[in-house]
Amino acid sequence: VIAFTDRATATADQPGVVEGRRPSPRRPHVGIVGGGQLARMTAQAAVPLGIEVTVLDPDPAAPASGAGARVRVGDPARLEHLVALARSVDVVTFDHELVPIDHVRALEEQGFVVAPGAGVAELAFDKSVARRRLAEAGFPVPRAVVATSPAEVVAAGARLGWPVVVKAVRGGYDGRGVAMVAGPTEARTAAELLGPEVVVEEHVDFDGELAVMVARSRSGQIVCYPPVTTVQADGMCAEVVAPAAVSPRTEADARELAAGLADAFGLVGVMAVELFAVGERLVVNEVATRPHNTAHLTIEAAETSQFAQHLRAVLDWPLGATALRAPAAAMCNVVGPADGSDPADRLARALEVPGAHVHLYGKAARPGRKLGHVTALGATPEAALATARAAAARLS
Amino acid sequence: VIAFTDRATATADQPGVVEGRRPSPRRPHVGIVGGGQLARMTAQAAVPLGIEVTVLDPDPAAPASGAGARVRVGDPARLEHLVALARSVDVVTFDHELVPIDHVRALEEQGFVVAPGAGVAELAFDKSVARRRLAEAGFPVPRAVVATSPAEVVAAGARLGWPVVVKAVRGGYDGRGVAMVAGPTEARTAAELLGPEVVVEEHVDFDGELAVMVARSRSGQIVCYPPVTTVQADGMCAEVVAPAAVSPRTEADARELAAGLADAFGLVGVMAVELFAVGERLVVNEVATRPHNTAHLTIEAAETSQFAQHLRAVLDWPLGATALRAPAAAMCNVVGPADGSDPADRLARALEVPGAHVHLYGKAARPGRKLGHVTALGATPEAALATARAAAARLS
Repeated sequence: VIAFTDRATATADQPGVVEGRRPSPRRPHVGIVGGGQLARMTAQAAVPLGIEVTVLDPDPAAPASGAGARVRVGDPARLEHLVALARSVDVVTFDHELVPIDHVRALEEQGFVVAPGAGVAELAFDKSVARRRLAEAGFPVPRAVVATSPAEVVAAGARLGWPVVVKAVRGGYDGRGVAMVAGPTEARTAAELLGPEVVVEEHVDFDGELAVMVARSRSGQIVCYPPVTTVQADGMCAEVVAPAAVSPRTEADARELAAGLADAFGLVGVMAVELFAVGERLVVNEVATRPHNTAHLTIEAAETSQFAQHLRAVLDWPLGATALRAPAAAMCNVVGPADGSDPADRLARALEVPGAHVHLYGKAARPGRKLGHVTALGATPEAALATARAAAARLS
Repeated sequence: VIAFTDRATATADQPGVVEGRRPSPRRPHVGIVGGGQLARMTAQAAVPLGIEVTVLDPDPAAPASGAGARVRVGDPARLEHLVALARSVDVVTFDHELVPIDHVRALEEQGFVVAPGAGVAELAFDKSVARRRLAEAGFPVPRAVVATSPAEVVAAGARLGWPVVVKAVRGGYDGRGVAMVAGPTEARTAAELLGPEVVVEEHVDFDGELAVMVARSRSGQIVCYPPVTTVQADGMCAEVVAPAAVSPRTEADARELAAGLADAFGLVGVMAVELFAVGERLVVNEVATRPHNTAHLTIEAAETSQFAQHLRAVLDWPLGATALRAPAAAMCNVVGPADGSDPADRLARALEVPGAHVHLYGKAARPGRKLGHVTALGATPEAALATARAAAARLS
């Protein structure tokens, strides 16, 4: 194995096998729970800043392992594995939400630095808690009911008015764990698939979807990126365009809303706020308390990428400038095609498209799986999107 | 050790200990001779393109090891170590010139893919050969004489006219191996320190120094980056500004000269051409057949960084766009201060400067050693330089 054993923390119950270089004790050291593409791109941003990164992941060949991060092989759902990670780093942060929120709380209680802390992470980890706390704090959210049985889902649908959106409370991502249901029969099916506990929400008939990335450092500095327009396909983010096609007033409202959320809940790190635009009104759809697909274009398009910003925030360093470097930018995801082929095999053809920035995640190709993305800058959103789409089409 | 043994190539004479992740056999695999900051930044550019990188370096903790590259521990001056690297990768390229050019030739003769090949690499590896071949091919170079004894150096100085520049034929870098000498006494000292074989060149009384980065792929595609102005301090590149402060005609001449060199010598990869501007006339000072300090600003300032471009070229992929993304950009090197302190310890203060992009190389701090650089974009060269200088000053 390409590994060293971390003797300081290895016991029968705590995983001590770490794949990768031995960390330098002189450098800041960030631990990430999960080693997927977000951890991979965070590890890339860590290199020029001299930050050591260790990820906790069951797979020693997780995407982050290809970008200079070491992998602590373990299970993010087991507290003792989280503790072993926390002991070896300066701060613990997250690549995904598949962690019991009580474990996050336990790490904090044991004195480890966790960013974001459980108080804000639960907005992303638990949709039931999120809906309640956002509404209590006065943020605009869809009307929603928590249901714990098929009958309660049907009753909630009748009360809110069909169609409704049924969401698993925990563990959903990329459209998984979410169902739009038209009536009682579909509601029962959704309740059985996603339950027992689900959130039932009114369907918001939005004019558009946008997202705002906000960062807050431990000492309270807050910066927002320009809002972006997002286009979903099958519940998965497919395309993102910056700046968002909204009025200056809506743009200002979106930034204010995101900064208000970061402040109200004591965010440390970055947070993506996904919004529905209904006329001039904004409604919070989802929040993710980590780097997010809707801000991948910040790697090329912003002065500071969301990944570098997240590192600065969790280490309590000064936050970076968020202005766009170009009049417009666009991002398209690269998803595994139905025939099972690997987009990486078509990379050279995609690189023929001038100005296309291809990011591959080093993941095995599977139909429907996010395997990479393409970003392009442009004089207009349309020009940037055309470039990004052209390269993404050559890959997929 | 964090290492695996490459059984396919390990013998008593060939180093088989490789530090890092096991490479994926499905991905393109680039081998780099040397694991310094250039290899580190090349490894960073390799991550989003899904390229595996292995460096050959005596130090398992070489800078590239922190950026996802694996390290084959070995000596770049030993042919059997170079062969072991070449056997494990698709193409061999270089981080530095401290390799006997005959070894490069031997690798090619054994059928390995080497980029650049010895025919062009020797322009950078051997200053005596470079001067002769550049002059024979009709490129503008300073008048120069090869000398092999102090007496010959003195005679050359008398012939060319004092002062002259005396250069070690091999192994110089960052101002080491070069001396400006005013007369016979200094000439003898320089000959003893840098000899026995040295190149004695006329001193060119230049109006300015510029550099052009050119890339050529195996199949002959050539692209040039916009010429940059370079400022040297103690013979080491200190600051770079883009675009160069030269007339449109000089800019066009510089690009044409660089493209002509790439074409004439069959470059594969990137090449930095450092030029003296004397009025409207250009004279070739040095060439480096690898990524170069004068093009570090392409990471943020160009559509395609020099590192991604080098990878594309050596893998014979389509070359990327070279246009600047901003009206101007500037780079300042971060050098270890005289007090021996580590600029990395002052990183947070440097990050307070908006728009400064800090790159640390993960090297131990030593006075005078290049430890990193800072790049900034701006509306004007002056604005970009002010930002980069402000952050670099906080680090040094």
